[in-house]
Amino acid sequence: MARWEPGTFERLRAAALTLYDEQGFEKTTVAQITERAGMNRRTFFHHFADKREVVFAGQDQSEEFIAAEIRNQPEGTDPLHAAVAGLAAAADQIYEQFRDGAVLLGRVIAASPELQERELVKRSTLAARIAAALRERGTAETAATVAGWTAVAIFFVARNQWNQPGNEHTLADLITTTLQEFLSATRSTPSRTP
Amino acid sequence: MARWEPGTFERLRAAALTLYDEQGFEKTTVAQITERAGMNRRTFFHHFADKREVVFAGQDQSEEFIAAEIRNQPEGTDPLHAAVAGLAAAADQIYEQFRDGAVLLGRVIAASPELQERELVKRSTLAARIAAALRERGTAETAATVAGWTAVAIFFVARNQWNQPGNEHTLADLITTTLQEFLSATRSTPSRTP
Repeated sequence: MARWEPGTFERLRAAALTLYDEQGFEKTTVAQITERAGMNRRTFFHHFADKREVVFAGQDQSEEFIAAEIRNQPEGTDPLHAAVAGLAAAADQIYEQFRDGAVLLGRVIAASPELQERELVKRSTLAARIAAALRERGTAETAATVAGWTAVAIFFVARNQWNQPGNEHTLADLITTTLQEFLSATRSTPSRTP
Repeated sequence: MARWEPGTFERLRAAALTLYDEQGFEKTTVAQITERAGMNRRTFFHHFADKREVVFAGQDQSEEFIAAEIRNQPEGTDPLHAAVAGLAAAADQIYEQFRDGAVLLGRVIAASPELQERELVKRSTLAARIAAALRERGTAETAATVAGWTAVAIFFVARNQWNQPGNEHTLADLITTTLQEFLSATRSTPSRTP
């Protein structure tokens, strides 16, 4: 990557997200993005597979980090707490630094049915990745799959509070609070399990 | 609907799913489906918006049923048990009768990336519908959203066991077992909540 100017990725991404916000994701072309960023097509396609992937850039690395954190949770931690701990660690060490851009990103996704559908695919991938990390810790397949989806739901509920204008909580705090609210609600029925 | 021959819907759906299974969803046209079923295009589009909706037919009615069952759960039932009870009731009263077709349907979806992506959208709609029913019972928004996604994950894990060739369990039993496995796994850590 040495022959690419430093900050190229960030400049292209900022130009793209600003345009998506101004005129809509569907109406924005790669030509407009590269013109706004003052770069050429080749540079764009060096960094992004297509204009949709600009929105979800970095997810693979985040998933790698989350899976490693889950595998490293203390033995005996239950799968849901292990999964949420992995997501909270990623929130602190990866997502929190992008807080300023998160409001814009949330608005762009909320305005585009295509991006919302794509986000569902990304959620599904993340849930599967979490489930795989849980299985590596010894969680049975069924519980790992359900815990993966539950953790992802907790993450997205928290993110959709975190990326609101005026929010003052960290994403990790919101994730922890959401987990507690879910557990309190679901544990309120005394022993209904057969 | 009186002017449509009885069984039209079922014949069109059977023809479509058989063709999707034989030659792939992507390669099948509405013309092929109507030819196989011995009907015309107009009849097809009376019953289905497009060839994709054939696969997911009936979901709106199922969601209506599930939401009503959730609202009717005894007061004090926690949101996750209420949601799962609604899904188990639908399994008994709606899904179980389609068991023979479920193996074929599962195979068709598993073979098509487009249908898998569409199924994620349907899952998301179902999770939102369940969350809305839970909120009507007094569950707070955050817990309702997470419980909705967890219940949907439980439902799909169970369905993906139910629709395997050779499975002898009912869908409702598999749903109950999956819930128990999730709860046992996540309750195994003694009081890690802060």
